[in-house]
Amino acid sequence: METLFAAVDLGGTKIAAALGNAAGQLLHTETVPTPPGAGPEAILSTIANLVDSLSSRAGQRPVALGIGVPGLIDLRTGQVNFVPNLPTQWRGVPAGPFLERRLQMPVRLLNDARCATLGELLYGHGPQYPSFVMFTLGTGIGGGIVIDGRLRLGPLSAAGEIGHSTVLPNGPICGCGNPGCLEAISSGPAIARAAGYPDTESAASAARSGDPRAQQAFRDAAFYLGIAAANLVTALHPDALLFSGGMSELVDLLLMPVRAAVNERVRMFPADGVAVRRAGAGPNAGLLGALALNVAPDKIAL
Amino acid sequence: METLFAAVDLGGTKIAAALGNAAGQLLHTETVPTPPGAGPEAILSTIANLVDSLSSRAGQRPVALGIGVPGLIDLRTGQVNFVPNLPTQWRGVPAGPFLERRLQMPVRLLNDARCATLGELLYGHGPQYPSFVMFTLGTGIGGGIVIDGRLRLGPLSAAGEIGHSTVLPNGPICGCGNPGCLEAISSGPAIARAAGYPDTESAASAARSGDPRAQQAFRDAAFYLGIAAANLVTALHPDALLFSGGMSELVDLLLMPVRAAVNERVRMFPADGVAVRRAGAGPNAGLLGALALNVAPDKIAL
Repeated sequence: METLFAAVDLGGTKIAAALGNAAGQLLHTETVPTPPGAGPEAILSTIANLVDSLSSRAGQRPVALGIGVPGLIDLRTGQVNFVPNLPTQWRGVPAGPFLERRLQMPVRLLNDARCATLGELLYGHGPQYPSFVMFTLGTGIGGGIVIDGRLRLGPLSAAGEIGHSTVLPNGPICGCGNPGCLEAISSGPAIARAAGYPDTESAASAARSGDPRAQQAFRDAAFYLGIAAANLVTALHPDALLFSGGMSELVDLLLMPVRAAVNERVRMFPADGVAVRRAGAGPNAGLLGALALNVAPDKIAL
Repeated sequence: METLFAAVDLGGTKIAAALGNAAGQLLHTETVPTPPGAGPEAILSTIANLVDSLSSRAGQRPVALGIGVPGLIDLRTGQVNFVPNLPTQWRGVPAGPFLERRLQMPVRLLNDARCATLGELLYGHGPQYPSFVMFTLGTGIGGGIVIDGRLRLGPLSAAGEIGHSTVLPNGPICGCGNPGCLEAISSGPAIARAAGYPDTESAASAARSGDPRAQQAFRDAAFYLGIAAANLVTALHPDALLFSGGMSELVDLLLMPVRAAVNERVRMFPADGVAVRRAGAGPNAGLLGALALNVAPDKIAL
């Protein structure tokens, strides 16, 4: 019988769960809405029940559980320290130990963008690029940094928070409190607001149809994304910058200008060899990353 | 007989050379002016003669030569690609192979800031900090990045060019051609110019005596240095930011504001545990780095 791993992608609106094998095949999946207004214990119980339910369907228990969480999680302790998009406080919640007791299996939790980066490393374009920076473009801007084949996490599993690079000194105040973060200018909601549309999809189609305000919103977003990207290339000279998340589909409006900005701004060495492209793990990147947490813990530099 | 290594620090005005041992003791040193107007061959011959002369004094040949060069050098090929502060063109000069033939020993060349970072890793504060970012503050702003005990170089030995981070979009044009580089705002000459003094020493003492223009020049320099520093902490969460070079002595005017900026701007995780301090290798950091090139090649991630 094949070894199976459980993977969970915890989001503000839904919780996706899967059982998968080491090759990155998701064999059984289930998605439920995030219980509205629920606190940590109810959400963690929902996750445990999903794992039980998938195990019943598979007729087999997974050997371990990995969870991607949209916040600050210490991989070493399994402690969730901050989750901005869930309704209740998660400061200091020992989610890992709680689920290990409940499910009787090892549980690893990590920030969702770092999870997606690990998924990309194993199951996406990662194998082509020993070192790469991943940008997850969506409601927020997250990231992860892979150096010489291993995900860099740092002492609090927080390295890679590239959405919170200051790109415009004295710029708009970010949700984190710092003025001029990339996320405050180039995230989906920031672009939609600047464009005057309810969401990025409508802003993008307006920009493509010639709406000057929407075009300007995307030009600005791409300009600052280009600065953050060029600065990371200058500092790390990775083999690639990879982009995931819904907005990474906007190749003409975001990725092509970022490619140009990297070539333009990095002048100390030729940077045109640095690939700038969409990530390869696809729409299941979150679940694949959560799977990778237990399939390849050796690819995480702690 | 103790194994000796030759180390050379090539600068725009002088060439320092030494023989040292693996423990980082510089046993014999010699410094000559950089031959004015000389081309690559004359300068490389001067270096070779220095090594010969030091060998005679020591009564012993070193086993290898390391050279720090203020420019873009590919460590793998020994090819010098760009040296802005030497009078003649060094584009594509095979300095390593030339000196290996001439001296009949292995020769390694690397950018001087990356050399200093390696020296810090071996002989300075490096042993305390598994991961750190080094800023070399002087005429230019150079840097190096150590991750998990190894200097990160990237495919062209150019990673760590943090002086060329864009910190002010549409800011002053840098020597590299990019607008808004840290070096264009916070390097010694940029501060002196903004302060209205001929050099940073007089600008610093004017600032300390209450000259408002000099104070503003340092506040601006520290503000943008703080942005670059905070962005690197956000991306990499290193254990320390270390500062070397003449300007790193200006603790009150530069390092203390950078410490405050890191605490202020990094809000996704507590960054007060990241040390912000002067490097420990001291005034011989350049030579120690060139020594380290051959003492500890295993500490270089290529």
